[in-house]
Amino acid sequence: MSNPPEAPGRREAVAGVRAEVSRRGVLYGGAAAVAGVMATAGRATAAQAGSTADGGTAVEAFHGPHQAGIATRPQAHAVFLGLDLRRGADRDSVSRMMRLLTDDARRLTQGRPALADTEPDLAALPARLTVTFGFGPGLFAAVGGGPGRTPPVKDLPAFKIDKLEERWSGGDLLVQICADDPLTVAHALRMIVKDVRSFATVRWTQRGFRRAAHTQRPELTQRNVMGQLDGTVNPAPGTPDFERAVWITGGGPLHGGTTLVLRRIRAELESWDAADVVAKEFTVGRRLDTGAPLTGRQEHDEPDFARLTAAGLPMISEYAHIRRARVEDPGMRIFRRVYNYDEGVSAGGTADSGLIFASYQADIDRQFVPVQRRLAEADLLNEWTTPIGSAVFAVPPGCGPDGWIGQSLLA
Amino acid sequence: MSNPPEAPGRREAVAGVRAEVSRRGVLYGGAAAVAGVMATAGRATAAQAGSTADGGTAVEAFHGPHQAGIATRPQAHAVFLGLDLRRGADRDSVSRMMRLLTDDARRLTQGRPALADTEPDLAALPARLTVTFGFGPGLFAAVGGGPGRTPPVKDLPAFKIDKLEERWSGGDLLVQICADDPLTVAHALRMIVKDVRSFATVRWTQRGFRRAAHTQRPELTQRNVMGQLDGTVNPAPGTPDFERAVWITGGGPLHGGTTLVLRRIRAELESWDAADVVAKEFTVGRRLDTGAPLTGRQEHDEPDFARLTAAGLPMISEYAHIRRARVEDPGMRIFRRVYNYDEGVSAGGTADSGLIFASYQADIDRQFVPVQRRLAEADLLNEWTTPIGSAVFAVPPGCGPDGWIGQSLLA
Ligand code: HEM
Ligand code: HEM
Repeated sequence: MSNPPEAPGRREAVAGVRAEVSRRGVLYGGAAAVAGVMATAGRATAAQAGSTADGGTAVEAFHGPHQAGIATRPQAHAVFLGLDLRRGADRDSVSRMMRLLTDDARRLTQGRPALADTEPDLAALPARLTVTFGFGPGLFAAVGGGPGRTPPVKDLPAFKIDKLEERWSGGDLLVQICADDPLTVAHALRMIVKDVRSFATVRWTQRGFRRAAHTQRPELTQRNVMGQLDGTVNPAPGTPDFERAVWITGGGPLHGGTTLVLRRIRAELESWDAADVVAKEFTVGRRLDTGAPLTGRQEHDEPDFARLTAAGLPMISEYAHIRRARVEDPGMRIFRRVYNYDEGVSAGGTADSGLIFASYQADIDRQFVPVQRRLAEADLLNEWTTPIGSAVFAVPPGCGPDGWIGQSLLA
Repeated sequence: MSNPPEAPGRREAVAGVRAEVSRRGVLYGGAAAVAGVMATAGRATAAQAGSTADGGTAVEAFHGPHQAGIATRPQAHAVFLGLDLRRGADRDSVSRMMRLLTDDARRLTQGRPALADTEPDLAALPARLTVTFGFGPGLFAAVGGGPGRTPPVKDLPAFKIDKLEERWSGGDLLVQICADDPLTVAHALRMIVKDVRSFATVRWTQRGFRRAAHTQRPELTQRNVMGQLDGTVNPAPGTPDFERAVWITGGGPLHGGTTLVLRRIRAELESWDAADVVAKEFTVGRRLDTGAPLTGRQEHDEPDFARLTAAGLPMISEYAHIRRARVEDPGMRIFRRVYNYDEGVSAGGTADSGLIFASYQADIDRQFVPVQRRLAEADLLNEWTTPIGSAVFAVPPGCGPDGWIGQSLLA
């Protein structure tokens, strides 16, 4: 284990490289070194583009009236990054931050390295990367807006089912990073964090996943960690109902934007696993295997909430999740873009797993709160799920090639 | 937030279901309920099989002379589960445990629910799932083998670069779960942990990832979180060199098995990101963009370790990672099957990220230790990497349809 005589110690070895590297540095020159990084980036993109499977090079557009990452077909991997502005942040610094972050997102999502990308080769495979920004109540407080002006988002009311933990709640700025490749997500996160660091500190990171992109046909509903088909009744991007449910209108600075409620909901998998199929299906009001409502045969059959069993009881319980969560007007529904989380196992074998429940809607008070209130009052699923984190964000509209996210609110 | 009069409290609601569920239970009968679970499982497999993209239903064979998950093309997601046997474990209980776990692995890898699968629908998409078992020194101590009998694996010697943490080190039993889908991995982990619980406690879980399965062509070398092409020089499954390097021969109880050294190596990404491209390439001895050796043009060009610069210095430093790690005899190399890890970001923005370095070889002392010793003595990469976990396992051979993993060692 001791150093053989011919081998230098670690420090000397490193000093050795440093010397040699700076010799080379002199050789190539400082400006050349910078150019080298850029060239490296360019080359890598070209070299890999020709030789990859389709998935890696697939790109989601960045520019448009709405931010990407909402109507975008959910990618397999996500990280939600919650940040707190540093003390003294104001409209000016927040604007600078958003210009910088917009530039990062614009490049990375198109498979180009960020401006100061320290690992440009990792940017070459965006795999449908999207980077979406949200502004929390604290950001609006920091940038001001005149006395008495109500910020567009405020914390949710308390619900009696909540067991919220600080470490998963709140945040002034949200960055939602989604891609079909986990390494792409890791790299984008690292570049964003690096650039935001002088403006904000990390409050939390939440990593989520869904079925891998190539696992099943994208139009099929996915299962969550509880084994349920999750996403059956949900506004469909591209439909008028989706447009009405999700996008803020009215011509104000949030026109084209939306709001995000992000709830971390632990699944009590121990007791859930111990329950039998009948109980599980009764809880939700749908079958586990097909996802069909208990009154129907196929996943997309309309549930018949009036139907009774021979014994005169409702087939779909009064307290079944889908009955309590139901909103009749499709244009007033919430849009759920949900990820699973799963973090290690305790010594006793208990999983730390659940949903990162991301709900988008034009109006939190009119759309999200009534549903969450009904569920908090009575929902059989509450027995097996516990909200442990909660945060709300206004999601600014998208921007064009010369604009930046948040411009309409901040500039 | 208070209960409206018509809504029962949470407890009553649940009691209500319980009653209704048991009414239904009576209706269907106990045996029928069990049959129902089985039928559910069968149906789900059939229903989903016809309607999935290829990736989800892809299967790796379970039976054979070697365990799967070693020569298997690395899947995108992995969890390494380290377990400690409960007090009083002996040859008999360990054998029972391995029969049970073998049965789980046999079913789950083929897309069938585990025998007591509580979420059978999640078993339907194996996505090339493999479940691989390894026995640590503690397991051999527990099952005995006569006084003075040396166990086939022992802890590694200490290396001066090590900053090992208990929480990532050691373990009596390893279960390596790999699949191209993260939900498949989560489900398999849950079922394995459930079944192993009466025999062992969880010591650690380590989650890793590589590029998603559809991101790039499988024959291309992948990048790690440091941005390097990682895996260029590695015995290739199917070649005689691989057979010789990896599988234990000689007809003993481990014939057809191998050994695994699992090192958790933190990447010091802060300082790595701050280094320039020249320094990074000098450190490894290869280019970042193409992965070519500094003396070559293409990734798979042979490095020319004798070549000097105009200034008379070696082109590939004496302390470059690839020179220090080089083993000339290809049949004596280690087989690296490496995953990235990436866990959250500290408030200051520092990533907790690195490699789960899984090295398979027939003989740890003759193959792994000399390389690790040379690297510990002097390797420029040490400046940016820190081993924080270490564990060793004997990996028993595979088994046939009537056998179980570990049989040759335990029965
Ligand atoms: C861990 C927590 C949760 C789980 C496991 C879960 C699971 C499910 C499942 C399996 C369905 C039926 C299939 C579908 O239509 O997607 C469903 C429907 C629904 N859930 Fe949840 N859910 C959870 C939390 C929530 C929360 C917090 C809300 C809103 C506050 C919510 C709102 C809805 C809505 C609106 C529907 C559609 C109801 C309908 O009109 O049919 N869910 N959920
Ligand atoms: C975080 C830690 C490490 C990183 C980032 C890393 C990275 C790399 C890279 C980029 C290469 C060149 C490309 C290739 O051939 O795959 C390489 C080669 C290699 N590494 Fe590592 N490595 C690490 C740790 C280790 C350790 C702990 C060992 C063994 C104890 C090891 C053994 C090897 C070997 C045998 C080669 C091939 C050398 C040759 O013959 O060309 N590496 N590694």
